[in-house]
Amino acid sequence: MATIQDIADKLGVSKSTVSKAINNAPDISETLRKNILNTAVEMGYTKLRRSKGTAPKLCVIIKNMEYEEPHQFGYDFIIGFRQMAEPAGFKVDVIPVTDTLQKKTPYDVFMLQNNYIGALVLGFSLTDPWMKDFEKSHTPAVLFDNYIPANPFISSIGIDNDEGMGLAVSLLKKLGHKKIGYLSSDLGSHVMQVRYKAFFHAMVQNGLSPEKDWAGSSYYITQCVENHLMRLLNMGMTAIICSHDLIANAAMIQCQQLGYHVPKNLSIIGFDDLPMCSYTSPPLTTIRQNRTELGKCGYYAISSLLNHVPIGTILLHAQLIERGSTGSFITNTK
Amino acid sequence: MATIQDIADKLGVSKSTVSKAINNAPDISETLRKNILNTAVEMGYTKLRRSKGTAPKLCVIIKNMEYEEPHQFGYDFIIGFRQMAEPAGFKVDVIPVTDTLQKKTPYDVFMLQNNYIGALVLGFSLTDPWMKDFEKSHTPAVLFDNYIPANPFISSIGIDNDEGMGLAVSLLKKLGHKKIGYLSSDLGSHVMQVRYKAFFHAMVQNGLSPEKDWAGSSYYITQCVENHLMRLLNMGMTAIICSHDLIANAAMIQCQQLGYHVPKNLSIIGFDDLPMCSYTSPPLTTIRQNRTELGKCGYYAISSLLNHVPIGTILLHAQLIERGSTGSFITNTK
Repeated sequence: MATIQDIADKLGVSKSTVSKAINNAPDISETLRKNILNTAVEMGYTKLRRSKGTAPKLCVIIKNMEYEEPHQFGYDFIIGFRQMAEPAGFKVDVIPVTDTLQKKTPYDVFMLQNNYIGALVLGFSLTDPWMKDFEKSHTPAVLFDNYIPANPFISSIGIDNDEGMGLAVSLLKKLGHKKIGYLSSDLGSHVMQVRYKAFFHAMVQNGLSPEKDWAGSSYYITQCVENHLMRLLNMGMTAIICSHDLIANAAMIQCQQLGYHVPKNLSIIGFDDLPMCSYTSPPLTTIRQNRTELGKCGYYAISSLLNHVPIGTILLHAQLIERGSTGSFITNTK
Repeated sequence: MATIQDIADKLGVSKSTVSKAINNAPDISETLRKNILNTAVEMGYTKLRRSKGTAPKLCVIIKNMEYEEPHQFGYDFIIGFRQMAEPAGFKVDVIPVTDTLQKKTPYDVFMLQNNYIGALVLGFSLTDPWMKDFEKSHTPAVLFDNYIPANPFISSIGIDNDEGMGLAVSLLKKLGHKKIGYLSSDLGSHVMQVRYKAFFHAMVQNGLSPEKDWAGSSYYITQCVENHLMRLLNMGMTAIICSHDLIANAAMIQCQQLGYHVPKNLSIIGFDDLPMCSYTSPPLTTIRQNRTELGKCGYYAISSLLNHVPIGTILLHAQLIERGSTGSFITNTK
């Protein structure tokens, strides 16, 4: 790993100037600071070994995910992460980021100038600018529901979607269903691609023979219901698995308006186990992503990366939560 | 979780009798001890909360894998596990097991009567009797290169074989190879099935179009070379990936005897990075399974299970080690 001396030598400046730039001292020009930080990052310098006296700092980088109220997806996630990281001596900051910030400041530079030695990254899509940075970055990052191959500084965490989809399809099969459809939101995110493949894989594993058009995906929930739900019902599906709970709930309401009884004529399964699932009518059978435990997985992953054990992936066991939206197949006639 | 009192109530014996059975006291009949242990296990009793004063005990359960000498596969694995577990206050025993032992004593009973609170399991095949036990067991176990779905007490660890195969195929493609064959040992083990699928997946991901007969598998290395190597060469393969280093080395020697020059006429890649890979002629390009780091992953996994965070899978980043057995495709004519 490059030292402050290496950076000073490369740029022909003094060690103290490099040190000032890295520690955000005020008496150095913005242009020089930027130049020094970029060079430091190019040379693979990170702050890993530099936290004497003060608690080492981790951050939760978050986008497209709410986290301030107890019922929001990010809330328990961050609590789980803190429950492990803080007793281990880390300070944890939560940093919402925008596209603009990501475009202006490369990931490694952001981490270096803010003294973070590692990050848990929540809610990123495939098009977030830092996703490209992660391919080559040197600062440990743990990505929830995203995956970067072949960079030993980056880990991926999430639930085991293959296992979860397997549990969903097995339950429906046990209940007598054979024609099972799949409604997904847009396939522009890693996790939606994974679940889409997992659906077909689980169907085949269970001896069912899905055609390609047994699944449908759209960006907006309303589009998804409009474009695909009627189509699947007309094809004689007796059960529908949805890529997340919000679609499942929308589909359930729409089917009830069309005169279907859930679960007598149609079973529906969601994904995530959002707090609302207990309160829908009927309560929604779903695959739980335990958010507190995912936060803890995030800590296990960052801790291994900081210990130079390059864990690439941690998958939490998925859990089937059986509620009222699934039942034995009796008839699909309303 | 069941208590000693629950077990005593169920069997109509005293708490002290249950306690004697569980702690291997001598003044109790073998039949009664067995009955009590089986009942305790059925009721989900484990020793997790019972280690006062003495260090809690973990074990490495090992089969079909040598571990006593530094060059053997299990040696560094166990060192990595100990390097994490012992400073954390655990005592670690290494227990070689036979089929006979597994058939005689169920896994949970074995763990209970020997005071182990968790196990790292190395070298098991799909037919090992305890593989069935793991589906329902209550005592945390971390399986290397094996996978049990939907039991929150069982984790799986290994390298990311998809990533590793992706690195191997990408390298060969970059070197100009298009016709790439795959030699595998018998598909009766979980990891061999995973690598076999990973080969076809990586080929497709790289825009190559493998036919089913571009791969071949046999139980013995000699069979594998006899049955499939000539066949692949006659089909015009210019590179061959092997499911592990021993097959790669045997294939390399055989090709050289047939007059091929490795890597001028034929590139060969192994899997594992056994110590021998530096000494073969030419030195073997391979995908490294870092055994010390895998041992550490084993500890991360058991530690999470003991903390009630049901991690299902941990995959270590695979690493491409490029040596002399791969080169640019020039001609496949000898």
